[in-house]
Amino acid sequence: ADIEAGKSKAAEVCASCHGVDGNSPAPNFPKIGGQYRSYLVKALNDYKSGARNDPIMAGMTANLSAADIENLAFYYSSLPGTLNSNK
Amino acid sequence: ADIEAGKSKAAEVCASCHGVDGNSPAPNFPKIGGQYRSYLVKALNDYKSGARNDPIMAGMTANLSAADIENLAFYYSSLPGTLNSNK
Repeated sequence: ADIEAGKSKAAEVCASCHGVDGNSPAPNFPKIGGQYRSYLVKALNDYKSGARNDPIMAGMTANLSAADIENLAFYYSSLPGTLNSNK
Repeated sequence: ADIEAGKSKAAEVCASCHGVDGNSPAPNFPKIGGQYRSYLVKALNDYKSGARNDPIMAGMTANLSAADIENLAFYYSSLPGTLNSNK
């Protein structure tokens, strides 16, 4: 996975709700900075497939490629914090 | 919401997968310490109702009362960390 590509895609697609640092500014959007990489990949794939149903995230993930998803998960999981383990 | 009741219920129901501090020991389980309280309430309610479908969490939430859910969200959202805002 390419962390710089993830950062760029995050700024484009994710940051308005989840923040550039993954600390979402609004409490209805979960914090994702330092979350487990594998969990973020699963969440994005589940939103994209519809296994996890959310109208906002369905739209946000519709045009993400498998590489985009890997890169985004790598980027957000890598951010510093006590939740950071980058697994 | 009662944070001590949340702590007690967390130890009983949640901690084996998500940790007593919300930093899950295994990367397939998301970290929840310091996550937004409102988001944790929504996640638990969605698992309980089936709106969010996960066989593990369906079982875990089946016997949680509305008060349990409020208390658990209060407890896990209050834990220290860079993700802590307790909103």
